[in-house]
Amino acid sequence: MPFRALGRLHDFSERICAIQKSLHPKIDRKAVVIMAADHGVVAEGVSAYPQEVTCEMIKAFLSGGAGINVLAGQAGADMIVVDMGIRTDLQPAHLQADSRLHVMKIARGTANMLKGPAMSRQQARQSIMIGFQIASDQIAAGAQLLGTGDMGIGNTTASAAIGAVITAMDPDAMVGPGTGVDNSGLARKCDIVRGAIEMNRPDPADGLDVLAKVGGFEIGGIAGCILAGAYHRCPVVIDGFISTAGALVAERICTKVKDYLFAGHCSAEPGHHHMLAHLKLEPILNLGMRLGEGTGAALAMHILAGAVNIFNQMFTFEQAGVSGQNP
Amino acid sequence: MPFRALGRLHDFSERICAIQKSLHPKIDRKAVVIMAADHGVVAEGVSAYPQEVTCEMIKAFLSGGAGINVLAGQAGADMIVVDMGIRTDLQPAHLQADSRLHVMKIARGTANMLKGPAMSRQQARQSIMIGFQIASDQIAAGAQLLGTGDMGIGNTTASAAIGAVITAMDPDAMVGPGTGVDNSGLARKCDIVRGAIEMNRPDPADGLDVLAKVGGFEIGGIAGCILAGAYHRCPVVIDGFISTAGALVAERICTKVKDYLFAGHCSAEPGHHHMLAHLKLEPILNLGMRLGEGTGAALAMHILAGAVNIFNQMFTFEQAGVSGQNP
Repeated sequence: MPFRALGRLHDFSERICAIQKSLHPKIDRKAVVIMAADHGVVAEGVSAYPQEVTCEMIKAFLSGGAGINVLAGQAGADMIVVDMGIRTDLQPAHLQADSRLHVMKIARGTANMLKGPAMSRQQARQSIMIGFQIASDQIAAGAQLLGTGDMGIGNTTASAAIGAVITAMDPDAMVGPGTGVDNSGLARKCDIVRGAIEMNRPDPADGLDVLAKVGGFEIGGIAGCILAGAYHRCPVVIDGFISTAGALVAERICTKVKDYLFAGHCSAEPGHHHMLAHLKLEPILNLGMRLGEGTGAALAMHILAGAVNIFNQMFTFEQAGVSGQNP
Repeated sequence: MPFRALGRLHDFSERICAIQKSLHPKIDRKAVVIMAADHGVVAEGVSAYPQEVTCEMIKAFLSGGAGINVLAGQAGADMIVVDMGIRTDLQPAHLQADSRLHVMKIARGTANMLKGPAMSRQQARQSIMIGFQIASDQIAAGAQLLGTGDMGIGNTTASAAIGAVITAMDPDAMVGPGTGVDNSGLARKCDIVRGAIEMNRPDPADGLDVLAKVGGFEIGGIAGCILAGAYHRCPVVIDGFISTAGALVAERICTKVKDYLFAGHCSAEPGHHHMLAHLKLEPILNLGMRLGEGTGAALAMHILAGAVNIFNQMFTFEQAGVSGQNP
């Protein structure tokens, strides 16, 4: 075809070839891993929704009516839900037997990061190891493309704190409305992020320290998934604001993970593009989405599939008997 | 879900509901219509590729190795190819019997618009009527979403001329490298567009006049498809630079067509975003593509499908038993 006439599709397929070390890239088997956890900082009134919603949404994922069910289904991706540390136990109990659910509770929510570290360094390490193991299992079971997703009331607050620390930007630029706090809520959320950073003084160079002090269990789980993707040469498409906070943590632990990442979309959460710029990732989609759950990652999988299909199936001009450029 | 948390997906599904006058929108059956024709202005050396490529690419579409075969196939869309006026006859002759090909030759290419009008007003009307009929037949056969595509060596030159006339912008802003002319070729192409406009003085308010004087048969066919989509309440997703030139012509004939259009993507051809801005259409994708054939339209169909699937399948918080916002 005319030189690189499919634009970024060429970049995508080349990167997947490089990641998979293959000129026959394959992303037929896909999985979206949704990491879920609760956040102690919700006690400060940072969210528009009550904390029960974290658990209720896990039920919705398993029942099949959530946004990610629709979009992962459309993309032909399996969905895995990991309870990294929600406050409650899933009711009714039989839901816990669903093979798509992995109960790996580290604790019943993080501690309030305004009063001290959200979790211990040991718990931070544990969250990453769980994410690494879950993703490794998916890859061992045949997944050729992973998507990350999140669920956790309060997690835009933790993600904004991680973003502010690692990108060295002011919390003002990183804090957004999340699921929809109003203006006074936004100002309070900003104060809380600033206060949590001042109280805990996380070391921006130490991803584990940032995760422990102002992060969340699901964010550690996402970081672990990303590290596993890089380790096993499996491309990972991250979702929005929370997944990218996980990517920032993973990148502090191992810079090379960036080479294995695709940014599914740019979220409407205003700090997200700063995070992506820090990671030098250009989003695939830009549709003003801010639902989380992995919805942006799932939708972007169609574009990556298009890139790989073009690479594998399209003829060259020579194969198709089409004349070349004028001399 | 949190208010409009899926961003533009909500806009897309609402628009499709409005177009189809239904709260159960359906875009299961999709078709990409590729309009093909040759251009007399190629004699001026405006293209990086020889004119034979138009016909050779039609063969490639029917043989199955072109970009649009891959991406329409992935999107589950049928592909229709219309010979609106290519110079040669398709060889070997048995290809003409392929049911996906419609031979509706208006002439063996347009006249050279630098020397006079590209076609007569009667031919311009004919090209639109053919496009209207082809699209109407697809809709009658069950298509619920149409995509437009193009093939025609020289057609970025004609499209740039249409764009310059209708948007009232300088040809400098509208002319780009197309399939890849070099810098001196680009300057020549710009002079030719400027010369063709000065010679023919098309009336910007009269879409048929613009099409006749500086357009192409495939561009008229695309305009006809767009008018048919609006007439039959079928959403149409346009591809890139050439399809949008067709949309500009259609919009001059009937302003309301804009309400039935989706812009699949923003092309790398530099004038494209000016055309889209004139039509007040925001592109769905922005991936630097510039292959034509309908490839951008086909890829965007996944996003529109996502919007419709979310609208039809996702539960409300109430249905899913999820708590509402904090009081």
